[in-house]
Amino acid sequence: MVVFRVVLVEPEHEGNVGAVARSMGNFAFEDLVLVDPCTIGEEAFKRAKHAGHILERATVVGTVDEAVKGCSLVVGTTGIVTHGPKHYVRIPMSPRDLAARTAEHDGRIALLFGQEGLGLTQDELSRCDLLVHIPSDDAYPVLNLSHAVTIVIYELYLAEGHRTSRVPVSSEEERELLYKFFADLLEAIDYPDFRRENTEIMFRRMMGRAVPTKWEFYTIMGVIGDAAKLIDGRKKLPR
Amino acid sequence: MVVFRVVLVEPEHEGNVGAVARSMGNFAFEDLVLVDPCTIGEEAFKRAKHAGHILERATVVGTVDEAVKGCSLVVGTTGIVTHGPKHYVRIPMSPRDLAARTAEHDGRIALLFGQEGLGLTQDELSRCDLLVHIPSDDAYPVLNLSHAVTIVIYELYLAEGHRTSRVPVSSEEERELLYKFFADLLEAIDYPDFRRENTEIMFRRMMGRAVPTKWEFYTIMGVIGDAAKLIDGRKKLPR
Repeated sequence: MVVFRVVLVEPEHEGNVGAVARSMGNFAFEDLVLVDPCTIGEEAFKRAKHAGHILERATVVGTVDEAVKGCSLVVGTTGIVTHGPKHYVRIPMSPRDLAARTAEHDGRIALLFGQEGLGLTQDELSRCDLLVHIPSDDAYPVLNLSHAVTIVIYELYLAEGHRTSRVPVSSEEERELLYKFFADLLEAIDYPDFRRENTEIMFRRMMGRAVPTKWEFYTIMGVIGDAAKLIDGRKKLPR
Repeated sequence: MVVFRVVLVEPEHEGNVGAVARSMGNFAFEDLVLVDPCTIGEEAFKRAKHAGHILERATVVGTVDEAVKGCSLVVGTTGIVTHGPKHYVRIPMSPRDLAARTAEHDGRIALLFGQEGLGLTQDELSRCDLLVHIPSDDAYPVLNLSHAVTIVIYELYLAEGHRTSRVPVSSEEERELLYKFFADLLEAIDYPDFRRENTEIMFRRMMGRAVPTKWEFYTIMGVIGDAAKLIDGRKKLPR
């Protein structure tokens, strides 16, 4: 079964946090994690209405890494879409696509939402397996935080009804290992240094969008690992 | 062409009215009508952010009849669905159905949202041509006013044909070339024959799901192609 975790990164307004909790109650989500949040007080509970228990049980952590621990997929949300094919970190899918693609997942998926007005930082976005953008008017694409959360979890809630077979997906450790193998392959083929980071992030993103199963991950890891080893073997041969 | 009017009936909290205006800005809606509202002051404009012009131009009227004047269809929203055959006024459609059914409509459609916590009255609901209910958890089906408006107009916006950013994706020929390169890599690493077909299909599926851009395709093709060539080079070296 897939379980979604809503992660608010450094929210500034407790009212928004409360409004998010309410929406989570409306759409049957429970797992709320707050990264270095503002003080959560009376206003937050007022806005949470009958979902105060979600606020009470929210986990507060200091870093994004702690917030996504144990999650098999990390989804970042971005209000701004940078056009141009090379802006690899900003090629997002829609919430509806996300709902469809995660319908058969088995594991915990973290949904990251950045600070009001600022969104997630480049570093935080780079850390995500895939990105989601809510289609909106170009003239004013930045939604209120709780509105953005509401739309994403509404789409996931609607898709819940259609979820059938569960296919095990790779764990965080497995994915990190794959990314390491890919980096090793770039090293083995003497990939240009200045392009390496971009290409690594691109690979992470493509794999994130593909949402591979455990079997797919191990298979592709085997191919990439063997290729890197064979090339390294060649290098060691005396010419 | 269809034009939508958002009608808030006796809203109590100006913050909600401002948040509704912001969402309207996000999804390119402009026509806001307020029926006997609370005072619209500083808090409303703060919450409206860059959509203050929608608040400024909002029409204030005294009755629902005035609010829906000139509209060819009046849609009511309801957070509570009463079951049973006699509650004909409470058999609603989803926002997505509404979006689909009004896609080809020509005229102005009023979307009525009732007071926070109370919703539209029986009288107001009776006056509506059709009802919309946002699917939500039975345990807590009542959404915050601005969240409810946001979901309904988000669905209507999507139905307009707006999509996430358009990035050039690879052509069929390019993809076939990538699959060939991947097959070459399997050949180069002496991949077991009996697993080769499955692995090629798996790669094709994963790439299909990832929907890579042109740039991503060329990048990954470069890595795979270089790897295969380097390994082949090794094979040709005299041992």
